[in-house]
Amino acid sequence: MKRIESKKNPQVKQWKKLQTKKERDKTGLFLIEGVHLVEEALKYKGNISEVLFTESFQMPHHWNLDEVEVYIVAEEVLNEIGDTETPQGVAAICRKPSIDLERTTNSVLLIDAVQDPGNLGTLIRTADAAGVDQIVIGEGTVDIYNSKVLRASQGSIFHIPISKGNLYERILQLRDSGHTIFGTSLDQAEPFQNIKHTGPFSLIVGNEGRGVQQELLSLTHQNLYIPIHGKAESLNVTVAAGILLYYLRG
Amino acid sequence: MKRIESKKNPQVKQWKKLQTKKERDKTGLFLIEGVHLVEEALKYKGNISEVLFTESFQMPHHWNLDEVEVYIVAEEVLNEIGDTETPQGVAAICRKPSIDLERTTNSVLLIDAVQDPGNLGTLIRTADAAGVDQIVIGEGTVDIYNSKVLRASQGSIFHIPISKGNLYERILQLRDSGHTIFGTSLDQAEPFQNIKHTGPFSLIVGNEGRGVQQELLSLTHQNLYIPIHGKAESLNVTVAAGILLYYLRG
Repeated sequence: MKRIESKKNPQVKQWKKLQTKKERDKTGLFLIEGVHLVEEALKYKGNISEVLFTESFQMPHHWNLDEVEVYIVAEEVLNEIGDTETPQGVAAICRKPSIDLERTTNSVLLIDAVQDPGNLGTLIRTADAAGVDQIVIGEGTVDIYNSKVLRASQGSIFHIPISKGNLYERILQLRDSGHTIFGTSLDQAEPFQNIKHTGPFSLIVGNEGRGVQQELLSLTHQNLYIPIHGKAESLNVTVAAGILLYYLRG
Repeated sequence: MKRIESKKNPQVKQWKKLQTKKERDKTGLFLIEGVHLVEEALKYKGNISEVLFTESFQMPHHWNLDEVEVYIVAEEVLNEIGDTETPQGVAAICRKPSIDLERTTNSVLLIDAVQDPGNLGTLIRTADAAGVDQIVIGEGTVDIYNSKVLRASQGSIFHIPISKGNLYERILQLRDSGHTIFGTSLDQAEPFQNIKHTGPFSLIVGNEGRGVQQELLSLTHQNLYIPIHGKAESLNVTVAAGILLYYLRG
């Protein structure tokens, strides 16, 4: 157990850098804050390299910190490295998980250029709830280790394998492995309720403004839309994903 | 057409006060910002009392400003009264709509103590898309004329009658009028897919942390839950509402 009292400590400066994607990419590390996220991360071995908490933090009895390095830090240290408005006296440095892309999947969510961090986090949480067993993030999507994404994911980031990749190639692989590929689109699409599906599937959801790229829609077996019954122009991407993922899994 | 160049103008101070719920309640007015919201408000007569835009704002040709008062204002005026990070050169002062509660409804969404403004706005947008024809907001829910709620609603605030009220009494009225009342809960609830429903219905969704109040759940005909297939603890309230509203309307 180590102690850090000053926010000028070099280690603190190092941790603070994890607020940037550049540093997260370079080190393979990211920062999580708050009781719930740290609890979720601790459930799975190897996620956490360092846990930091303040002297006054009431650690839950069931937390097992055997394999992590523990720091007792001043409150100003947590304030310095994090970005939550109401810090809960605990944070952790996590290792980005490595993903086994070879394993068989029954359902995959492909995310094309979603830009709002809250939306990305909620998509991950929704996919987790709906039993999706892999998420693939395409280019132009906000970094999954951004603190707002982590917060909105409510820990689901630790429950489900998430990889970044070229969506075009990944869709071709999923087609080869027997997945039915569903896109979301208003053109040449069917109302989702018309589709009766069984078996492995992948769903592509897209950018908040322009939807899924045309290039990817050309690879799908079927494009779906959710009928709008009132006067709204569209649904939020996380709500749309929730409706479709629950419908498709049956 | 009037001009206001200085943010110290008394009218500007008056508008700025609309950032507080107290002032909105007192005056029956609220402020909207950005092209999309103003466009939606203009579609329905009587919503807008004043439109404000900057000299450089490119007004869409189809906007009809016959019945509204128009102000050309300095950019600093818009920055002063609003709270968007990237103002689009346009804002408007709107009148809160009056609601006719006597009309017949086929589907009603009742919102019990939802506290995140983004969630409330997205709930309104989702209910609009799903064809809900009335929303009732119970005590403890964030103010619907809060700027973050308005933004997340994407204009749906102007599409669907929304009233505040005592949910307990409102549910009794809806029962009397022949609605089937569905609650959302994990106790004494059925997986939603087990329910086959036709006819008028009301759905109650609740607070992000503690769900729907027990007192209200005791008035329902049937409580529903959405099965969690992965390791997430729950779904976001807007996603849950989307899944259930689309399912129940059939």
